[in-house]
Amino acid sequence: MRLLTPGPTPVPQEILAELARPMVHHRTDEYRRILREVTEGLQYLFQTKATCLTITGSGTAAMEAAIVSTCAPGRKALVVRNGKFAERWADVCRAFRIDHVTCDAEWGTAPGPDRIAEHLAADPSIGYVIVVHCETSTGTACDLEAIARVTREHHALLIVDAVASAGALPLRMDAWGVDVVATGSQKAMMLPPGLGFVAVNDRAWAAAESFSSPAYYNCLKAYRKALAADFDAPYTPAIPLVVAARKALASIREEGIENIWAKSSRLARATRAAGRAIGLHVFSQQPSDSVTALCVPEGIDDKVLRTRLRNEHGVMIAGGQGKLQGRIVRIGHMGQVDAVDTLGALAAIELVLASMGHTFTLGAGVTAALRAM
Amino acid sequence: MRLLTPGPTPVPQEILAELARPMVHHRTDEYRRILREVTEGLQYLFQTKATCLTITGSGTAAMEAAIVSTCAPGRKALVVRNGKFAERWADVCRAFRIDHVTCDAEWGTAPGPDRIAEHLAADPSIGYVIVVHCETSTGTACDLEAIARVTREHHALLIVDAVASAGALPLRMDAWGVDVVATGSQKAMMLPPGLGFVAVNDRAWAAAESFSSPAYYNCLKAYRKALAADFDAPYTPAIPLVVAARKALASIREEGIENIWAKSSRLARATRAAGRAIGLHVFSQQPSDSVTALCVPEGIDDKVLRTRLRNEHGVMIAGGQGKLQGRIVRIGHMGQVDAVDTLGALAAIELVLASMGHTFTLGAGVTAALRAM
Repeated sequence: MRLLTPGPTPVPQEILAELARPMVHHRTDEYRRILREVTEGLQYLFQTKATCLTITGSGTAAMEAAIVSTCAPGRKALVVRNGKFAERWADVCRAFRIDHVTCDAEWGTAPGPDRIAEHLAADPSIGYVIVVHCETSTGTACDLEAIARVTREHHALLIVDAVASAGALPLRMDAWGVDVVATGSQKAMMLPPGLGFVAVNDRAWAAAESFSSPAYYNCLKAYRKALAADFDAPYTPAIPLVVAARKALASIREEGIENIWAKSSRLARATRAAGRAIGLHVFSQQPSDSVTALCVPEGIDDKVLRTRLRNEHGVMIAGGQGKLQGRIVRIGHMGQVDAVDTLGALAAIELVLASMGHTFTLGAGVTAALRAM
Repeated sequence: MRLLTPGPTPVPQEILAELARPMVHHRTDEYRRILREVTEGLQYLFQTKATCLTITGSGTAAMEAAIVSTCAPGRKALVVRNGKFAERWADVCRAFRIDHVTCDAEWGTAPGPDRIAEHLAADPSIGYVIVVHCETSTGTACDLEAIARVTREHHALLIVDAVASAGALPLRMDAWGVDVVATGSQKAMMLPPGLGFVAVNDRAWAAAESFSSPAYYNCLKAYRKALAADFDAPYTPAIPLVVAARKALASIREEGIENIWAKSSRLARATRAAGRAIGLHVFSQQPSDSVTALCVPEGIDDKVLRTRLRNEHGVMIAGGQGKLQGRIVRIGHMGQVDAVDTLGALAAIELVLASMGHTFTLGAGVTAALRAM
């Protein structure tokens, strides 16, 4: 099966092979070397010198850890809420009784720095801004660099969900002044799901150290302490995934992060052009280059489209989530997926749509994609 | 390397191979079938008809989930605290502001049902008893069946850390009336670390439904809801580990849980007999059959012993944790480890100890082990 889904993404053979290596115990020099390399690889991925932590859990665990470990009581969190995952982070704040307000926006849009600056100016008790870099549910990216600038101007900390962006969209944690970045293993990192990664800079650590987190397993202070004690982990880590992460991060470094960003951008451009050419409008007003959401045309059942793509062409794309169920399909541009996969999948979409009675010029999508590349 | 550690334990070749299979997407019928089989396999493992949930995280995450999802405000938790992991569950209660008291006991002992009954009788506001079935840090097992009986007599819920017991020590959740059982993948289940499993019966669900948990990622209600919705997961699961879990649980069922319990018991008996015969006293007063803690004799440096075992014989055993560091070594009897591994490791321990100047009759340990078998 060709996974063109926005996560999990295909795992390259050589990384799958790492998973099958005999078990290494985590309290050994061998494992400590592996975790050191993973940590350095993450610093490259996030373009940072900040502490990079590896936790056993999904991207949701990583983002929960970022929020509950750094949002100290006394100051409010501002959750920019423009999609399913953004809503989840507000739910996390609610569950952990973290004082928060939301900056709401239509799904498919991303509030700009001005709107966030307004919130920060209007309420000086806001100390934390929680934002989703790429909202996978709508294929929407925000202007993270600009948001980081206004957040810092207002002396707030910026906590970023980079699950569907790190390793696909340009992200320069230190240069942009982002304080906390969380991601998961199963998207641009070409790994199976099961690990979360969180980078925390010194400003965020100062906040974390100022209070006792209302969490235990997902409290990052324990991870930091263990890492500082010679690359240890506070709880038994998912060893095979960490071993595989070393390989994946090494290959990202070898390819060069800018080249990978450029590749995602090219694939996304091609996919958007193809969609437009065959009557599948791009859903997002600020489309992300890591995942493209295309509107399902009138009269086409997205489930039939996706099932036929799977059964007839071995291509898996995702449907809509939450209120977008049935209205969009989503195509990922992260990880191992390349031009051949993408062009092939776009061609398959044309074949299935044509046989489902959708009216368009056969070949127009792929042709537009080629031109866009 | 032969992992005779009490977790992670060796992962059989055929289970490692499962990890390297091409990625399956979790929103597919294929994955749902896998999760259904895992769920049924867990019911067999725990000997229960209760809901069995698979969460992405370590055993600590599973146990945290068990505690924070079921300990409703208004009633106190009683944490039986007799070792490092028991202490951790009191720390979890503290972090999540769960009202709790402790029943403290010396490391290497396990409070009996009478002591727990005394606590329950003295303080009727205790609604939850949190107990470690096998305290890995000391190699101590409690009388879980009897504790379950007194807990139920006092109308409290019993929450059990079975990380180092499920699949090694007799555990009959339904027959004994245990309400919540949590375990991790990396011990008796012959899997790599990275998954936690929690079984929750109807009495515990009633408690869980009575309040809003102070957690998000580790709140079990979301897992239950997703499982009920056709074997789904609330957050992207560690797919390869779940695929491997299916294989491991099938092999446990094939071998027969009573046979596995008997095997652990035989290996533990042999290890204790060997230890006694060569002057390595059994640390615990109520030794567990899943892990044996042996006291390091006077004049022997445990680090040198363990390093030489690794380097000269490819055998890894664990040292002590916390205040037992340097005082004990720990040998696991869980998972794939069998008589050959155990007898070989005991023989290697004799060889190393003899060359380190420890006085004993060479061969006495292995001979005693053979007799005990």
